[in-house]
Amino acid sequence: MTDSSDCVFCKIVGGQIGCLKLLEDEQSLAFLDIGPQAEGHVLLIPKRHFERLDEMSGELVGRVCGHLPRLSAAVTRVARAEGCNILQNNGRVAGQAVAHVHFHIIPRRSGDGLGYRWLAGEYPRGRAEEIRGQLEQALKDLA
Amino acid sequence: MTDSSDCVFCKIVGGQIGCLKLLEDEQSLAFLDIGPQAEGHVLLIPKRHFERLDEMSGELVGRVCGHLPRLSAAVTRVARAEGCNILQNNGRVAGQAVAHVHFHIIPRRSGDGLGYRWLAGEYPRGRAEEIRGQLEQALKDLA
Repeated sequence: MTDSSDCVFCKIVGGQIGCLKLLEDEQSLAFLDIGPQAEGHVLLIPKRHFERLDEMSGELVGRVCGHLPRLSAAVTRVARAEGCNILQNNGRVAGQAVAHVHFHIIPRRSGDGLGYRWLAGEYPRGRAEEIRGQLEQALKDLA
Repeated sequence: MTDSSDCVFCKIVGGQIGCLKLLEDEQSLAFLDIGPQAEGHVLLIPKRHFERLDEMSGELVGRVCGHLPRLSAAVTRVARAEGCNILQNNGRVAGQAVAHVHFHIIPRRSGDGLGYRWLAGEYPRGRAEEIRGQLEQALKDLA
């Protein structure tokens, strides 16, 4: 967790910066993204400042994410979209522009030019099993 | 919810198709994506078949998403990555290739060519407030 005094989302939570609020509970806040990828693009954040998802407890992530089904249904309906992306970026390299955990809910329509750049590869023989072993160890270390 | 008899993820859950499993509980399963965007790309799914996130209860989404912090930390560490994307696509138009809810955890490094195509726009004056009103109504209807 970094210092939050300069964080625009902390200022929104604290009311120093306004937002077009959609829902709020003790842990979570959802509001309209004012630089939207498409009309109806919504942001869902934990009220407490965390830079990356892995700084949050699983319980808190679960509570915040519990709002995703209803929010994604509402966004898709209002945008008259055919689907939506849920996107949460960790780190500048991953496209994170505000250093406070946020979930994007982005409505999608054919030909909108949005979406993830898909570059699916393949593992060389045996490599996937190696990676699996390393991930299992990391998950144990992180338990 | 659609018929799940042809669903590759249901077959993985049921053991008819193998996977490189990483974690499992009553509701959730995480395993290696074998057509990875980058080494260490992981999928997290609810065991029960739902096509889109908005077919799931908030509670169930919360339980599944509770695994995201530890999984994203493990993926980032093992891939020696600088960050990661969490991505969940709803609908073919949104890039959903398997019609069973899944969260991608994709490790990210500089210059990897991945990431979301970012086309941030602006609302004409008054339009954001209109959309907010429609979203509020939709959220009420969906409550």
